[in-house]
Order: sequence, then structure tokens, then C-alpha cells
Amino acid sequence: MDHVASPSRCCLSLFFLVVAITLLVRSWHPPSKTASSFLDCSQYSLWCTSKNLIQAKSNLHDKPLLIKQPQVVLPDYSSKTHQHPLDPLTIQEINQVLAILSSFPPFLSSFPSINSVSLDEPEKSQVLNWTIGHPLPPRKAFVIAYLEGQSHILSLDLASNKVTSHEIKSNSGYPILSKEDMTVAAQVPFSNPGFNRAVTDRGVALSDTVCVALAPGWYGREEEGRRIVKVQCFSSQGTSNYYMRPIEGLTITVDIDKKQVVRISNTGREIPIPHATNTDYKYDSFNNSPKEGLLNMRPINLISMVQPKGPSFSVEDGHVVKWANWEFHLRPDPRAGMIISRAMVRDIESGAMRSVMYKGMASELFVPYMDPSVGWYFKTYIDAGEYGMGLSAFSLVPLNDCPRNAYYMDGVFAAADGRPFVRSNMICVFERYAGEIGWRHYDVNNKVRESRPKVTLVTRMAASVGNYDYIIDWEFQMDGLIRIKVGLTGMLMVKGTPLQNMNQVLPHENTSGTLVSENVIGVLHDHFVTFYLDMDVDGPVNSFVKVNLVKEETSPGESPRKSYLRTKRHVARSEREAQIKLKLYDPSEFHVVNPEKKSRVGNPSGYKVVPGATAASLLDINDPPQVRGAFTNNQIWVTPYNRSEEWAGGLLVYQGKGDDTLAVWSERDRAIEKRDIVVWYTLGFHHIPCQEDFPIMPTVSASFELKPVNFFERNPILRVPPCQE
Amino acid sequence: MDHVASPSRCCLSLFFLVVAITLLVRSWHPPSKTASSFLDCSQYSLWCTSKNLIQAKSNLHDKPLLIKQPQVVLPDYSSKTHQHPLDPLTIQEINQVLAILSSFPPFLSSFPSINSVSLDEPEKSQVLNWTIGHPLPPRKAFVIAYLEGQSHILSLDLASNKVTSHEIKSNSGYPILSKEDMTVAAQVPFSNPGFNRAVTDRGVALSDTVCVALAPGWYGREEEGRRIVKVQCFSSQGTSNYYMRPIEGLTITVDIDKKQVVRISNTGREIPIPHATNTDYKYDSFNNSPKEGLLNMRPINLISMVQPKGPSFSVEDGHVVKWANWEFHLRPDPRAGMIISRAMVRDIESGAMRSVMYKGMASELFVPYMDPSVGWYFKTYIDAGEYGMGLSAFSLVPLNDCPRNAYYMDGVFAAADGRPFVRSNMICVFERYAGEIGWRHYDVNNKVRESRPKVTLVTRMAASVGNYDYIIDWEFQMDGLIRIKVGLTGMLMVKGTPLQNMNQVLPHENTSGTLVSENVIGVLHDHFVTFYLDMDVDGPVNSFVKVNLVKEETSPGESPRKSYLRTKRHVARSEREAQIKLKLYDPSEFHVVNPEKKSRVGNPSGYKVVPGATAASLLDINDPPQVRGAFTNNQIWVTPYNRSEEWAGGLLVYQGKGDDTLAVWSERDRAIEKRDIVVWYTLGFHHIPCQEDFPIMPTVSASFELKPVNFFERNPILRVPPCQE
Repeated sequence: MDHVASPSRCCLSLFFLVVAITLLVRSWHPPSKTASSFLDCSQYSLWCTSKNLIQAKSNLHDKPLLIKQPQVVLPDYSSKTHQHPLDPLTIQEINQVLAILSSFPPFLSSFPSINSVSLDEPEKSQVLNWTIGHPLPPRKAFVIAYLEGQSHILSLDLASNKVTSHEIKSNSGYPILSKEDMTVAAQVPFSNPGFNRAVTDRGVALSDTVCVALAPGWYGREEEGRRIVKVQCFSSQGTSNYYMRPIEGLTITVDIDKKQVVRISNTGREIPIPHATNTDYKYDSFNNSPKEGLLNMRPINLISMVQPKGPSFSVEDGHVVKWANWEFHLRPDPRAGMIISRAMVRDIESGAMRSVMYKGMASELFVPYMDPSVGWYFKTYIDAGEYGMGLSAFSLVPLNDCPRNAYYMDGVFAAADGRPFVRSNMICVFERYAGEIGWRHYDVNNKVRESRPKVTLVTRMAASVGNYDYIIDWEFQMDGLIRIKVGLTGMLMVKGTPLQNMNQVLPHENTSGTLVSENVIGVLHDHFVTFYLDMDVDGPVNSFVKVNLVKEETSPGESPRKSYLRTKRHVARSEREAQIKLKLYDPSEFHVVNPEKKSRVGNPSGYKVVPGATAASLLDINDPPQVRGAFTNNQIWVTPYNRSEEWAGGLLVYQGKGDDTLAVWSERDRAIEKRDIVVWYTLGFHHIPCQEDFPIMPTVSASFELKPVNFFERNPILRVPPCQE
Repeated sequence: MDHVASPSRCCLSLFFLVVAITLLVRSWHPPSKTASSFLDCSQYSLWCTSKNLIQAKSNLHDKPLLIKQPQVVLPDYSSKTHQHPLDPLTIQEINQVLAILSSFPPFLSSFPSINSVSLDEPEKSQVLNWTIGHPLPPRKAFVIAYLEGQSHILSLDLASNKVTSHEIKSNSGYPILSKEDMTVAAQVPFSNPGFNRAVTDRGVALSDTVCVALAPGWYGREEEGRRIVKVQCFSSQGTSNYYMRPIEGLTITVDIDKKQVVRISNTGREIPIPHATNTDYKYDSFNNSPKEGLLNMRPINLISMVQPKGPSFSVEDGHVVKWANWEFHLRPDPRAGMIISRAMVRDIESGAMRSVMYKGMASELFVPYMDPSVGWYFKTYIDAGEYGMGLSAFSLVPLNDCPRNAYYMDGVFAAADGRPFVRSNMICVFERYAGEIGWRHYDVNNKVRESRPKVTLVTRMAASVGNYDYIIDWEFQMDGLIRIKVGLTGMLMVKGTPLQNMNQVLPHENTSGTLVSENVIGVLHDHFVTFYLDMDVDGPVNSFVKVNLVKEETSPGESPRKSYLRTKRHVARSEREAQIKLKLYDPSEFHVVNPEKKSRVGNPSGYKVVPGATAASLLDINDPPQVRGAFTNNQIWVTPYNRSEEWAGGLLVYQGKGDDTLAVWSERDRAIEKRDIVVWYTLGFHHIPCQEDFPIMPTVSASFELKPVNFFERNPILRVPPCQE
């Protein structure tokens, strides 16, 4: 290639790198004198760890550092003021919420437990009309509290210090189980002699016993009229991975409000506790044992994504992410985990920012296990509504969960007593270069050879919901594509068994999963993650178009061909027409278009939902868990925008009956053509465990995409420069 | 985390990097004195470009450098001797083949055109029994030649300098169209006054006219009994992207052997040649026009995958790749492009290398366009057999097609006259770190927090088959997973149209694609890539098991649950039982197991084929193109190993009738249980073009995986160390 000289933008133009310290400020500063002095190699010995750098800088700036390590002192949240209508509540605001609730008459006699405190978003129109620099819409808080069997749904106006709405719900599901609830539930059994005997009878010391609080689902039985938790226990003796050592068949039903044991089910006394051998995953647990995995593997040299000038993105006012042609608002949320709002991409012709999506988030999960036995039938988790994806998302591990140069965002949530706490490093944002190709071509006729590397931006969180870890990535590409990826790792939920070897299984016997180790069955289960995608393609007024591929037959003599394909566009008029089950042999594309916005050559501006590999729920549609998880009955749904319909499993999911799910809303069959619409996409996994998943699972991932379709007049990355030495 | 100190293996342990020069030798050398001296910062100014480094070293070593730039002089191939039974033919050997053929009696009177010369692989048993250091099996060459309407299939013994087998085939398809054939075909029309008039009548200067040679498929018409090429032409006036300026409706049928025009079809005189505006993609063509794509985009800082100590893999004897726990043989091939052989992974317990796959490659492609009109119906390409994926793979662009530190492998092929030529930088191998997570968990109960970054190894080639570019990656993970990924980019095959805007389309009119620009329709089409996967899981004797997920109903009173899932294992006895169409609502896993090799707890050792997002062919099964592309009738097939069944579309595909495809072989329904079996997987894409694909397509990718299932006793990356500062 004979390219004209141009500064390389995508890679290293020199073979040596220097430290780059970039501070998080409203916009990028030019490298400070101090930073640039790091070019002086003689200082490396003094300045070679980020720890030093942070210490060196932290006294100069009160903003969090871009290269952030756990050692970094947290920013002073109390002084944080919100700059955007969608900024999450601050510590100050959560304290204000607590103050308002404390003087709220219904709560004067006895104060409820606070299950979630989050931003009560302004009306969409207010947010859309707001521009930077202008006054923010009134700040409001949305609170779910629980008191004496009743769920309280409140909205608070922080300007007037008033509760502006208060609704009480009974017996239609309960709020998210709080950390405090879980702690209590896990402790209650130990005050029960029968439980203690059951444990010690299995040869497990009470001091080694770890119990976990499990959502019971709803089966119209003992779950009726009271809030219960199913408690199951494990032996932690000899391992930090107690999940691999279940006390099988021991299930304690706890009334969490009365803090009483309702029932102890103790079957499976004959089932041994699996051994601790080879179950640990802590790196420092391997010191005294041979490191097979290392001894037999060729060592891997250092490899890192390096950015000598630092990342190209900025996070302005703490939440507005700007990168390449993208801009969006990013915030942590106790229930969804991570919320992307107002995603806009720059038009290559006009330079204007164009709306793609108003709001996107993981709305709900459904994880049914496939064992109908007494200790297992209820394991059909609806994680976001029962545990909270954000509340279950903990600090990411720098350099392991996220690469160097990642920016870390903290979550600010409320505890059960209503007091705020900070979940540090809960979300990371980083630029990604994986050696992928944005576009390329070699032309044999004129010998033109052009290629462009692909650089993307990723926002990531990881929720550890009990045994499982869910890694959720939103990846933004310069060509306008958004990839939403879910990774599954962590521990299998395993079942104890007398089986030591599959040769002990009778020919027609069928276990509920795979024997992954002696006495350990990895139980078959599914994972479904349903995403809420409030698409606003060039504005809120959109339509959903099913572009169906159909086979056409030629008429005799018309062509040497017998058949070919054509596209048939069907604009969905109402919700039922947009209940989609994917079919390999009746394929379609799924476009969200703006019927009013046509391209230069007359195609409607659109984005398409591109399904990836996925799985469908095969459970009986009337099975209680499937009724609660009915939002997985289709892979795609489209509903008219309704601010009260954000959680696919309903607002109050814990012990919910499934009477307030996406499936119920959609059956109203409301009009969705030329309206503000919300697309729901469900990513599914069937998980047949294998021994490789023991004792901790290598990450399994699946994804789907939101992809521009006639949104741009042409390839938006055509003019991105190549990488040159 | 409080980890014990351990050398970081996955990332940068220091904040500065140094140049690392690693030489390709049989095994890694410790950094040479010269290399390590680069640690001295004072030398950066002298040694900061790879070019200098290469020049500094190239006189010391005759081996190609690991950090290889286009400037590098090619290794001395004539002196290359093969070290492995599967090494490709050398320049020396191809010259020897030419010598043998020149004195081969049938070719004395007139010498054929040579369509492909490649290694005639030794018997599988010979390769399996061979160990390093021992004498190689006899070297043989496989030759396909073409002379006067006949295809000659020859095998040559290079030790005895003899043709050991010679078969002549007539009228059952022809060999790959050679580069020379294509050149002749594109020139022939210009000697035809009618053609020249047709072109100039469209207002295109002959000097601006670029013609391309297209395979005609087979329709039992003019293709019968002679070798023809369909020639279509474009205007290159004002653009290097002539594909966007078709002379629509002008199709010249050329008898390539007689070098004569058979027929000129000149419809569509009314269709204008689309404008050149915005069609170019050459970076240096943008200099005199505003760079919208850049002006409106925030600049991207340098980002690069950096390895201060160089890559961790070695390429021994030029073809044996060793990395982490993997080892495999990699070679270029004129037809398949890239062949992976003898893929083996190290067992974490025993440390022994275990066989996974004997041979894997892209066997065939099928690309039917969806327009039955006279100028388009025949466009149903079977690329590997008609053009050759290897012959169409050109030099990769360093830093754009492959990241820094990639190792480049050259291809050595034969031209039509039988003489060898070198296709430099045809394949690249690199380590990849994309910020992904190998496994992780945070435990709320004991506060254990562990995470491991994922580093993988990729081998890549890119075939530019006319307008389209196919990027093929084989990615190897330390957890034993192999991901096979196909990326599509390059140019759409577009159709000229009088349409300027979609508002000119009548309500019930249906175009054969999308109007991607004024007068330009991106025609709807499919892409299918069928992979040959000779799985040898712990040896050649394997079985194919369909692990079906089925819904079970509970009996009344048995459980609060109505339904759950179970797996039903079905071992395929013969080929028809392994003809698989994927179903979302009747899902299965597809295991290749070694029934003789059980894990510690009695599960058969296996690898599963994990389909990704894919597409199925919807054409009429009796449509001539679908008969030729019948290998796409299922997504998965399994056949008993047969060294003559490697090319899913047959050996001689050009104008072939489809009488020698995978579908024909599979219908024999041979036994496949407990045998040496070959799995065939087809990756499919439906491509409904959009304006973003104009004038060159952003890469679209899809992949599938080969994943260990009870192959390892447990998670093989459990003990990989975390990344630490």
C-alpha cells in the first residue's frame, strides 16, 4: 500500500510506550506537565506502578482517577451534584429520602425495610427536551419498602421533600429480598435443634455449615400469604467452594418476617457430602498442591491492550460517556445493574447526533432448574426481581475483569435501613481492540488493498447472584452496531448423589444432570435474560417491521432457476403481531424503523434486532414457573412505551404469581404502529453441565445485536484511516 | 484480593514497554544480547521502528522474522525441507512436479494447464504413526490438470519421480478456474465489435471497462459439453470500486477453451451506469474531499495489543504451532485456504497431548443470489471449487488485518504453467487478548473474589473471491474450546436499476434487493460455508451422539412442577441418523465421543459441535443450484472417514451437476458408530443488503465452536494465575 502519511489512530506508531495518566474531568485535559514528564525514562523506576501514580495524584484532585485501583480513596460523593436528568441518586439524596420517609406518617410507628431506592426518572418528554446547561427537571426518588406483609411503592419529590405518591400492595408478590433478609434467613435455622441435629447427623460441623437463602417461586402452597425463604446448606470444610459440597435433601422453609422455621425437609440422609478435593478455586489455595494446569502448559507472556495516550473516551459529569461517534448516559441501578440511556450516534453526513435508543437494560432473568424433586422443584429463579442484578454486582477485579485503562464507575445504593452505601468499581468502561477487522478488500484487478482494524467501546458489569456470575457487556462499534453480550460463569448449582461413577446408573435411569465429580450432579437448567430496549430511532415515533424471507417459485420458462428468495415487509400494527418465535426455516429480520425519516434514496431509517445463538423455554406454558417466567414465551415482543412496564417479570416478583408480566401486558394487543415502542429481546441458554464446569465454569457467552439498517446513507466507517507504522 | 506474589502471565507488570525481537527458530531462544539491549531506553531513538530492527537482524538469520513486515525479504524457499508429513509442497517439490509432468507421455504432445498442485497426504495411519525425528512417509503430490476438455487427476511420487495414478474425467464438472483462465475470459470480449459497441453505447470508454469472469453454474443448457465463463463488466471511471458501477444487463458467454464469444446478452440498455460519487474506498482517494467520517468523529487514540516479551507461541519448522496447552499443524492450501491438522491439547492431569481433530478446513462455499433474471440467475457460486479459497487469499495487511506481533505464513502454489509462486503473508497467527474473562466468581458469604482474563490464539486468512472478502479465523482457547469464525466484508454484488428512490417503486413491486444508492440495488443473497471436521477425539474411533433435550411431564401429585427437561442420548448408527436440521424448539447438543475412553466418573470423553447463529438454504431442493449446493441441505452431517470425500461440493465443481456432493455420499447411509468419522458443519448467512453496506461492507461475522464435553476431568484453566500489577 502506498498510503499518504497520516497519524495512526488505531495502534502503536512507536515501539515504545509511556505512562499516560488521564484524569476524569468534564472533558479531557491536555497531558499535564507532570504526566508528560513520564516520557523521561529515568523516572520509570520511581513511577512504574499505578499505585504510586494514584498516590502522587490523589492529593491534587478529588475526582476519581481514570486508571483506578482498589486502593484509591472513593470520591467525595456527598459533594456530588447531578448534571443530567438521569443521573442516579447521590448519597446526599438517599439520605434525604431516608429523612423524608422517617417523617412520613404511615412509617412513624414502625419503619419499613427499604428494598430499593432509585431515581424516579423524569417524564421522557422532560428528558428529551432538556439540554446541557439548562436546569434539571425536579429530582424524584422511587422507593419500594416492605412493612408487615405489605409492599409500599412510593415516589418522593426531593425538591419539596414530600412523598408524592404512595401505593400499598398485598399478596401479589414481594419486593427484592434484601441482603439483610438473606442474612437473617441463613441464620434462623441454626436456632433450631432439629436443624442442627440434621446437619451434625450428616457429619458436618455446624461451624463449617454455610446456608444460602433461595427464592421459593410460587406454587400456590406454602408460599401463599407469607414471605418465605428456602434455605439450603453446604459444608465449607476444606474449601472456599462450599457450593460443591451440598448437604443434599436438607431444605428449611423459613418465614422471613416471623424469623421462624416453618418446615424442615430432610430427605437424602443416605447421600454423602461430596469431598472437598479439587473444589477450591482460590489461587492461593494451590500453593501447597502441584499446579497441574501450569506445569503442563507453556507459559503465556505478558499481553495487554495498551493505550500510551490513554483511552479515547470521556465520562463527563460521571455518567455521560462519549467515544468516537457515540454518546450515551450510563448509570448503575440496584435492580437492572446497568442502564444505558439516550444512546446517540453521530451522523457522518450532517455531523448531528441521532437518537438510537432511549433506554436499554437487562430487565429480568429466568433460571429454571430441571428437577421436580422436593429439594429442587422450586429452583426457578427470577434473579433481577428476586435478588437485584445491581445489588448482586460487586467490585470488578482490575486487569482480570476489565483490561488496563478501564474506567470504573461506583454504584450508590440504599441498605435495608435506608442508609446509602457505595458499591465501588461496579461498572467498567474500556476500549477494546481484539485484532478484528472493521472492513477490508483486496482487488485482484486493480491491486487495491485496504483494511481497517476494529476498535470498540465496552461497558461491563458482573453480577454474582449466589453461585452464578453473569457478565453483561454493552459493546459499541463505530459502524453503529451495538452488541449486547451475556457471559455465564461462577459455580454450578449441584446436587448430591450416591453415584460415584456413571457405570452405576441403570440403562433406563435418567439423572437430572451430569455426574461432574464423585457424588456431584450438575443439574440441567436454562438461563434466560430478557432485555428492555426502548428504541427511539431518530425519535420516539417508530414502527416494528418484520422483514420475512420467503421462497418464490419461477414460472415455467421464466428462468433456468426454479426458486429464489424475496423479502416481504410486514409492519406490526399491534402487540400480538410482534410476538416472535425465531424460526431457522422461516427467517426474518426485525427492524425498528422511523416511518417519517427516509434515507436519501427513500429507505426508512432503522435499526434491526439481530438475534444470536439462543435457546427457547420448553417448559409447559401452564407450569407455575413458566407462568411467572412467561416473558420468555417468545424471543421478541414489542409493546407501546409505558413507564410502568419496565420489569418483564413484574414489579413485585418474589413469590409473585406471574400476573403482571410482559406476557400479560402484550396480550392487551395495544397498537404499536407509528408509536413510541419498546422491544424486548430474550437471550437464552440451555445448560447441560459437563465436567469442565467443575468446580467453577469457564465463561460461556451469547449475544445479540442492534444494527443500523439504512440508518446511515452509507458505510459510516469508510473514511476511518488505516493503521500505519 | 490478597494473592501471593506470582509472575504476571497475562498482562503488563510494568507501565513501560520495550521492543522485543523474537526469532522464528525450532524452539524459543532466550532473548539475544542484542535484543535485551533494547531495554536500554537510550537506544529507543535509534531502534524505534520494526523496519530497522528487521534490517539489523536479517543479515544474521535466514529464518523469517516473527515480527514480519512487508519489507522483509522472503525466506529462501528452495532450501526449505519439510519436517512434518503434512508440510505443504515446497518450491523445489513443485518444480519437481513440473519436471515429472513434462516428461509424462500423455502430456508430451501438448502440455495441460495446471489447476492445482498440492500435497497428496500420506495415509492417515502413516501420519498418526510418525513421530518427530523419524523419517517422513514418501512425499507425494496431488495434481489436477486440464487439457482439451478433459480433467486429469494425478498422483505423483516425488521419491521415485513417477506418476503413480492418472485418471481422466470428462463432462462431470471442471477444475478450479485458473487465474490465467480468468484473465483470458475477461479479455476475449474486447476482440468482439458487438461487445465494444454495446459498451460504448452505454457511454463507457473501453479503457474504463473492467470485466470479471463469473462461474456459470450448471443448468443443463449452454454449459453442457464445453467450459464457459460468464463475463460481466463495469465502469472504473472515477473510482477504484468499479463493482458499484455495473454495465447492467450486459453478459458475455465465453468459451474459455476456444477463447470465443458464444453469446452476448445485452438487455437493460435503459439502465444508467451508477455514478462514481462516494464509491471509492481507497484512503488516499479522500485527500481532496472532506473526510466526514473523521471530522465528525472523536479521534481514537493509539490502542494496541502489546507483548513486551513477544508472543507465547512458536511455529516450529514453519508449520507446527505450539501455544499454551495446544499444538497443531497449520498449512496453506490452494483450495481450502487454511488447513489445521493434528490439533492436540494437553491433558491437565497427565500432561500428555490428546488428539482432538485430525483435520479441519473450510471445505466448500455456496453463495446463491436471489434474482432469476437472465443476467443474474446463474450467480450461485461454489467458491472453493470454482475459484479456490487459497488461490483467492492474498497478502494480509499488517496491523490492519492482523495485530502487532502476528506471525505471517506464506503460501507456495503453482501457476497454470505449473511453475511455483509464493503468496506472501497469506496466513497470520497471533495471540489475542480482548478484555474477556476466562472465569470469575465473587462469593458473598466468604468474600472470595477471583477472576481470570482470557487469552486466545488465532490463525487467520482472508480470501478475496472477486468482490467479496471472507475472513476465516480459527481461535483456540486454553479451556479447550476451538471457535471457527467467518467474517464477510468487501463489496456487494450490485445490480443497476433505473430507480433513484424507493418512492418510484410501485406498491406491489418487489425488487431483488435493497436500493443502496441511486441506481444501485444490493441483491439479496445467502452465504454458506461448509467445514470439514475430521474429529479424532482421543483417537480415530469415535461416535456421534445427539443429546436431545425433551420435556417431561410430572404425574399428578409427584411435584408442584408440571414439567421439566431431560436429556435423551441417541448414538447415530448410520449417516442418515446424523443429517441434522437445527431446531430452536427441539434442541440438541451434538457430541463426538470416544466410546472407549471414559472420564474418571464414567462419562465418555467428547467434544461437541456448538452451532452459533446461522441460516439455512430455503431454495427448492431440486433447483439446479441447490442440487450442486446440496451439502447445505442440513446444518450438520456425519460421514465415515474417506480420503476421497473432502470437498463437500465434489472434486470437480466448475459446471458440475452436483452428482458428487456430501448429500450424495451421505445418502449411502454408511455406518458411523464407533468409526473414524468426519463431521460437516455449515455456517449460513442470509444477507439482505442495507445502505451501510455501500460502497464497502462493514464486516459481518458468525461462528461456531468445538467444545470439550467431559473431555477434561475438570475445568482445565482452574489453576491459571490471575493478572497482577
